[in-house]
Amino acid sequence: MIDFEETEFQLRTEKVQKNMFENNVDAILLCTEPEVRYFTGFRSLFWQSPTRPWFVVIPKNGKPIAIIPDIGRDLMARTWIDDIRTWPSPRREDEGISLLVEVLEGAKNIGILMGEEASLRMPLEDFEKLKSKIDGTFSDCSKIIKKVRLIKSEKEILILKNICSVANRSFDRANRLFFSGQPLNEAFREFKITLLEEGAEEVPYLVGGAGRDGYVDVISPPSSKPLENGDILMLDTGSTLKGYFCDFDRNWAIGTASDIAKRAYSKLHKVTELALDEIRPGMTCEEVFKLINNDLGGGSSNIGRMGHGLGIQLTEYPSLMLNDETVLKENMVITIEPSMSYGEGLMMVHEENICIRDGKPELLTKRAAEELPIIR
Amino acid sequence: MIDFEETEFQLRTEKVQKNMFENNVDAILLCTEPEVRYFTGFRSLFWQSPTRPWFVVIPKNGKPIAIIPDIGRDLMARTWIDDIRTWPSPRREDEGISLLVEVLEGAKNIGILMGEEASLRMPLEDFEKLKSKIDGTFSDCSKIIKKVRLIKSEKEILILKNICSVANRSFDRANRLFFSGQPLNEAFREFKITLLEEGAEEVPYLVGGAGRDGYVDVISPPSSKPLENGDILMLDTGSTLKGYFCDFDRNWAIGTASDIAKRAYSKLHKVTELALDEIRPGMTCEEVFKLINNDLGGGSSNIGRMGHGLGIQLTEYPSLMLNDETVLKENMVITIEPSMSYGEGLMMVHEENICIRDGKPELLTKRAAEELPIIR
Repeated sequence: MIDFEETEFQLRTEKVQKNMFENNVDAILLCTEPEVRYFTGFRSLFWQSPTRPWFVVIPKNGKPIAIIPDIGRDLMARTWIDDIRTWPSPRREDEGISLLVEVLEGAKNIGILMGEEASLRMPLEDFEKLKSKIDGTFSDCSKIIKKVRLIKSEKEILILKNICSVANRSFDRANRLFFSGQPLNEAFREFKITLLEEGAEEVPYLVGGAGRDGYVDVISPPSSKPLENGDILMLDTGSTLKGYFCDFDRNWAIGTASDIAKRAYSKLHKVTELALDEIRPGMTCEEVFKLINNDLGGGSSNIGRMGHGLGIQLTEYPSLMLNDETVLKENMVITIEPSMSYGEGLMMVHEENICIRDGKPELLTKRAAEELPIIR
Repeated sequence: MIDFEETEFQLRTEKVQKNMFENNVDAILLCTEPEVRYFTGFRSLFWQSPTRPWFVVIPKNGKPIAIIPDIGRDLMARTWIDDIRTWPSPRREDEGISLLVEVLEGAKNIGILMGEEASLRMPLEDFEKLKSKIDGTFSDCSKIIKKVRLIKSEKEILILKNICSVANRSFDRANRLFFSGQPLNEAFREFKITLLEEGAEEVPYLVGGAGRDGYVDVISPPSSKPLENGDILMLDTGSTLKGYFCDFDRNWAIGTASDIAKRAYSKLHKVTELALDEIRPGMTCEEVFKLINNDLGGGSSNIGRMGHGLGIQLTEYPSLMLNDETVLKENMVITIEPSMSYGEGLMMVHEENICIRDGKPELLTKRAAEELPIIR
């Protein structure tokens, strides 16, 4: 039990098994890091290596079964999983497939993640081989898994709060970290170190931008261009504790702020404030999107949505966007992320992390300053 | 051109297109981060978000074509790619599929990565939809891509040398970083900060272990158990510069070292030394495995191989193991990673990074100390 008590994993598994029963699914095959971790507690950076596939099968009843490379046996044995079947990987001629055939014997309707946001983290050739060797057939189980992962336990919410606090304490040190003349990549480096000092376990995600009056994109690695007076600096981090992510950003003006930047900032702050006031359980993601988008009054950016789920991944479903009919429920954790374009190709993003509660949502982040903060 | 001149990408593409011609492949579809980056130069941490798929098509002639979400247009436009087709993602009803159908029109034999180490980073449902909408058929192109990625350019080798130097400088600070009584997770935190201070851009991978006379596994997250006199501490990092990884470890004894630990260390050092003397272009990976394994004289661990390729991923093909018939060629970069089990369930790993050269391989890492270093 590395990150949670056994009951946490038991509950997750039982909820999925209830959904499996209702949908007549005999077994679910998982092969991706977040899902393997979610149901077993197996957490390792070793997934960085693409060489070896890892599998978990959720049966109709009882604990999940791990079908994994030898190298993972020791760590998996420290989770709540009892049935751990391993093979000496890498072994090209049979990377766990014969073990999977054994475990899936008798299962007719087998769920696998094929839908929105899904990947297949095993060679397609092996997947085809597996299909040819079993009696059952695969169908998408995205909805079954999603329904469970969407709702966070209080233990998960506490970890999410803690990692948000780590990032907030780090953002609060901005005045002493960033300065005019500092190369942007050095600002990034300082901020990563700060996040670690403040208690982050990993910093898998730090992006941002800087430029006069605003920035032009938010997914690039930093250049070595020095910060200048009048620049808007934005940093957006997905740091982790026990494998759980925060995901929010902060904006600052370096030295001085132009009116156009101040106006953009104030607008995004105000729009976020309205959303924080009005979001309630029972609303759909599309309704929240429209709420924010109407307040914003057009001029949206190329990001394509106004927030998303948050948890064991930097972004999880649902998406605050048109056509996402997911209904908000208590204990969902999401980001509120309005963004806008202005000036000549500039953009600004403003982000907070919240937990849906009975009544108003609970802020997990410390609310960003009302006015654009200036670093002097 | 963020990390390389255009000629670097042009050469990569032309080599693949030559292989495509010889294998009668009309187009290659790529959807995974390392491959998209390798052929376009598009480097972003945004891949952490699973929401949006990203595609690159390599045609028979000319530059690759990027089919990506709107949010990536600006960054992709700064690479050498000219033909960039985007859609407003997330958009569930069509996540780039109709654009792919256009780009793949007329291609009969389409390559996709289906073989060893491959993943499909798009929903299987979308892949099935794509298959049903095009005339061409997909077949595995792993060998075509592998043949090109295996051989590093001098520019790539220089970056790999630089990130190895960053890690070496960090390892050299061990005496001032680690001490008896220090919780293992704090040792990890200190070391991550040190890597960033010494110049690493990202630290996606830091694993290790600690325990009396040796450690029990090498893929777990660190516990908060304090280091004790007589412990062996091992840290293994995959840190990056411009998206290129080092991957090597170092071992230390805390305060004092037992004979059993010293013997294991010396044996692994000696075995590595022999490998560094004897590895030559023209040998197969299996031959290198046997060379190391014979020197080691049995007692191997659960890792399953004695080294692997290194570059834009923490681990790349080939594997130094039985049945890997890949022939070593000049300018391949690999790790030499002998490991052994000893005592009661203990293990030790010793790792260096090398470049295959005409004659003896070139060490990219600073050779580990001959005797087990003791931190006092």
